[in-house]
Formats: sequence, C-alpha cells, structure tokens
Amino acid sequence: EDEAYFSSYGHFSIHEEMLKDKVRTESYRDCMYKNTDLFKGKVVLDIGCGTGILSMFAAKAGARRVIGIDQSDIICQAIDIVRENGMEDVITLIKGKVEDVDIPEKEVDIIISEWMGYFLLFESMLDTVLYARDKWLSPGGSVLPSHCNISLAGLRDESLYRKHVAYWDDVYGFKMSCMKVAVMREASVEVVNKDSVLTTACVVKDIDIEKCTVKELDFSSPFSLEATSDGELTAIVGYFDIFFNSGCQNKVMFSTSPSDTATHWKQTVFLLQTPVNVEKNQRLEGSVSCKKNRRDPRSLIVTINLEGKTTTYLMQ
Amino acid sequence: EDEAYFSSYGHFSIHEEMLKDKVRTESYRDCMYKNTDLFKGKVVLDIGCGTGILSMFAAKAGARRVIGIDQSDIICQAIDIVRENGMEDVITLIKGKVEDVDIPEKEVDIIISEWMGYFLLFESMLDTVLYARDKWLSPGGSVLPSHCNISLAGLRDESLYRKHVAYWDDVYGFKMSCMKVAVMREASVEVVNKDSVLTTACVVKDIDIEKCTVKELDFSSPFSLEATSDGELTAIVGYFDIFFNSGCQNKVMFSTSPSDTATHWKQTVFLLQTPVNVEKNQRLEGSVSCKKNRRDPRSLIVTINLEGKTTTYLMQ
Repeated sequence: EDEAYFSSYGHFSIHEEMLKDKVRTESYRDCMYKNTDLFKGKVVLDIGCGTGILSMFAAKAGARRVIGIDQSDIICQAIDIVRENGMEDVITLIKGKVEDVDIPEKEVDIIISEWMGYFLLFESMLDTVLYARDKWLSPGGSVLPSHCNISLAGLRDESLYRKHVAYWDDVYGFKMSCMKVAVMREASVEVVNKDSVLTTACVVKDIDIEKCTVKELDFSSPFSLEATSDGELTAIVGYFDIFFNSGCQNKVMFSTSPSDTATHWKQTVFLLQTPVNVEKNQRLEGSVSCKKNRRDPRSLIVTINLEGKTTTYLMQ
Repeated sequence: EDEAYFSSYGHFSIHEEMLKDKVRTESYRDCMYKNTDLFKGKVVLDIGCGTGILSMFAAKAGARRVIGIDQSDIICQAIDIVRENGMEDVITLIKGKVEDVDIPEKEVDIIISEWMGYFLLFESMLDTVLYARDKWLSPGGSVLPSHCNISLAGLRDESLYRKHVAYWDDVYGFKMSCMKVAVMREASVEVVNKDSVLTTACVVKDIDIEKCTVKELDFSSPFSLEATSDGELTAIVGYFDIFFNSGCQNKVMFSTSPSDTATHWKQTVFLLQTPVNVEKNQRLEGSVSCKKNRRDPRSLIVTINLEGKTTTYLMQ
C-alpha cells in the first residue's frame, strides 16, 4: 500500500495540481514571507517536500538551513530545481521515509509540511509530521501549520442526491438498488455549491499540531446543526480550516469550506440514506467518529449518526 | 501492481462514471439490442463484467446463457443486481482472474468485453480478452467489439502548452525548468477542443480483435499528417475508434475523437518539446511506437518521432 501511495506522488501532474492550488500554496508562502522574523537564521525541516516549493519559500524567508525529505521520486526534480534557483547551499534534500532517514542537524527550529488529505486526515501523513516533531523539533520550536480543525454542515443538494442515489433506480432499463448503498458509503469529494448549505456549521475536531498525539487523530464528537432555512437535508458536508499561528506575528489561515474559494481538496460529501425534511431554526443532533482503517491505515472510516440514524462511510 | 489495479475497480464511483458514459454504454447496448438474431440462444462470455450491465444487455438480447467474470469485489454487487432483475437463471457470475477460473461451458459463442483504457491500450486488459478468446471461443464465434483502431492528429493548443510547459518558467517566483520535460513526458488525458485540431488524422494501428495476438499489441507505425491551416503545432493528440461488426447485421461503432461527443476516455495529449510552425497543406512525417512497460505491464511507453525529433512518453 505504501508503495502505491508514494508512487502516485511520482506522477508529476499531481505536483502540478498542488502547486496550482493557489489557496494552498500562497498560504504557505504568505506564512513564511510575512514572518521573516520567525524564519531568519533558523533550521527548517520540510516533511514531504515534493518539488521543494516550501523549502524554497523558507530559504527565501531567511532560514539558515532547510532540510527537505521525500520518499517519492519527485525529489530528483526537487534537487534540480533547488540547484536551478541557486539555493543548494541552504537547502539539503533527502530521499527516504521520514521514519528511516537521518538528518544533518541535531534538532530543527521549525517544521513545515503540507500533509493534508481529503477531509483533512485521509492518507494520514500527519502521523509522519508528528513523528518528526517528536524526534527533531527543538523545545519551543514551531510546527506550521500549527492548528487545524474539521467542520460539518448540513446540505440540501437534490442534484447530487439524484446523481449518486436515485440514478440506480433505472440504469438503461435495469434496477441497481444495491449500488445506492455501495456508492453512498464511499464519501465523495466534490466542490459543493455554497448555496446548498442548509445549516450552521459545527467544528467536530480541533487539532493542535504542536501537541497532539497520533492516537488523538482517531476521534469521536457530538455535533449540533441548526437549519438556516426550510428544506430537505440530503447530505452532510465535511471540510477543514488550516492555521499558521505558532511564532507568527502575522497569522495566516485558509479554509476549505464551501463558502471559500475551492481548493484541490474540494469538500467531502456524506450522502444520507434518506433525505430529512427540516424547518428553519430546527436543531439536528448527531455524532461523528473518524478513524483509520486498520486494513489500510491511509484510508479512513467515518461514521455519522444523525437524529438516531447511523451510516458508516469509507474513504479509500 | 495487479492488486492495486483490481482494488481500484472496487471503488463504486468508477463504475458509476463508466455507466454514465452514454457513448460507451449505449454502443454496447445498441450492438446487442439491434442484433438479437446474433444473440438469440447463444452462450455469451462477459470479460470484466463489473456491475453486470453488459451481461444483462446480452441476456435481454436473447442469450441462452451469459457468464460474467470479474476479479474485483464489484462482482458481489453484480450478483445482487442480476438477482434484482430476475436474470439469475440466465446469468452466471464468477469472481476471479480470467486466467485462473473455470467456466461452466466447454465453449462460448460470443465474447463481450469493455476492456479499453486510455489511448486504447493503457491497462492492457485486451490481453485477457485474447486469452479468453483462445481458450473458450467456438470456431466462427464473435468477439464484440471486433475491431478497433488508434489515430493521431496534430494539435494547436497554446493554452494547454502554457498550462503544462510554459508554467514552469515562473512558479511563485522560482524556476522549475526540469518539470517541463517531466510533466511533458507524462502523456495527459484531457478533452481536446475539436477546433484545436490542426492536421488531418492518421490511423496508426488497426486491431482485428478476433485474430490479433498479444504480441501484436506492441506496435510501431509511420504516420503522415497534413496541416489543414497555418498555425503552431504544440502537441499530437491520440484517440481510438471501436467497431462492433462481427456477426452483426446492424453494425455499431463509436469514436473517441475530438470531433465526437467526449467519453470518459477523453483524448490523450502528447505535448511537443518545442512547438512547430506549419503552413496549410504542409505534410508532417513521423512515426510512433507503443509498447508495454516491462516494469509495469499495465502502463505504456509511447515514442513519437515527428520531423526527426523523438520524444518518449509514459502512461502510468
């Protein structure tokens, strides 16, 4: 599984897509360029450095030394890129698994990493960042981003429901009812129209990346949503916010919510088995749990209980 | 590698996408429904049956018995679907690799299969169809589709060129020249605007699925393209046509060319290292070779020589 994971990042087009996600890349850039006081003279570690873009931001922000680690073959390009930009004296790149490699510094002042997956935790790369933090981060050092959270909201999106659920009632003249449950249980990653959000949002997980443990990334939480208008609730939408706070005089953040500019993470849609009619100001009570799939630790099992009905979704 | 291949088809959303590709699915349906004389009373084998849609088309077209084989977990859904449509007396589904399973008939009259990948041969599922043909097809039996071909044409698409090549000149203030070659060498799968086709098309490979051997699927061919207007050639586009002829009184075909309705196969774009200025009626001579990657037989290595310049592309 790990091999498939890393080889997918050997596809250059993935890096193109990530770089071109301006919300993502400019947030990292702004966090560093607007906080040069924090970076000046420091040792920075870049976990999963890819093309080396974050390492170069850190170098340009004044870091004394930047160490980038990546297991994928993309690091061969990163080495060329760093050289092409004349930064090889500052940036050191290491190919390998973070858990296996040695780095040429006893400790680092700042860890930067773009580790986020769909619904924040898909692909579980945060585990690796926490490993690096515990092994190499100096006391008082910063991890950037330093905080993040996951939110849920209710969705009224008939067309999405028709597309993924009602569709199976008549497929070229045949019934495929069992596909309704099958497709529904695969949480889908789509850009949701902000106008289809039908309830308030609720934060269901808050992560302090400088303090949390791997164990805490499996979580359960109650939530309460209030309908903002009458309508038929067809799905729960999940998204996350990312904060660059630690040590930063000029804090930076970005959100992957439906009301903000779409990113390559889009939103995660959990379709309901049966739509629920709600009235304005009605409160919907529920709970969510999110944990790694033991059979494939990069995939997630998300269980949502809403008004007493429980559905389990798989992200793989 | 094989495990990753089959597990990707355990994702239900892939089957949803394939079913919703009407050009694809309706061609198979039309081939069977418009040729019930061919199907009546016959034994049909469906290779890689997925949700069972083609098996059900064959049963409805009058087949006496349909045997569907799929290695992926989707076959559990197919079993439910066949039962829901009351076709379990006609359709027998078998989970396993075609190369490993036994079927409950000595031979079959017709083999149907939707085996096509990007640029036709990506994923190499045709090899499996040929294996089944040689093992089980009765003398005079039909394989549907029975013919296919691959074509190339020249493309003038500045925006695609800027997007994938020129982009790397300035990535948030850094140069990433080496990514030009890296990204270019990954043939990209995109829907090409038909107005950007700048030359005539040329068939570079013709496959008679009832006769060809696996060995013949690795091929080389010269090609000659004539510019239909003045312009700057930025890429070669590849696509394929599929023909349901064998035993059919009412022949059916579909094309994945840029001038036809887009399918989920889109087109395959091979960017040129350096755009070439051409004049209307100018002839461009070249050659193409396409072969399996020995290190990963489901991926393809495509080499294009155009006017003396050679570039190798990887589809993986």
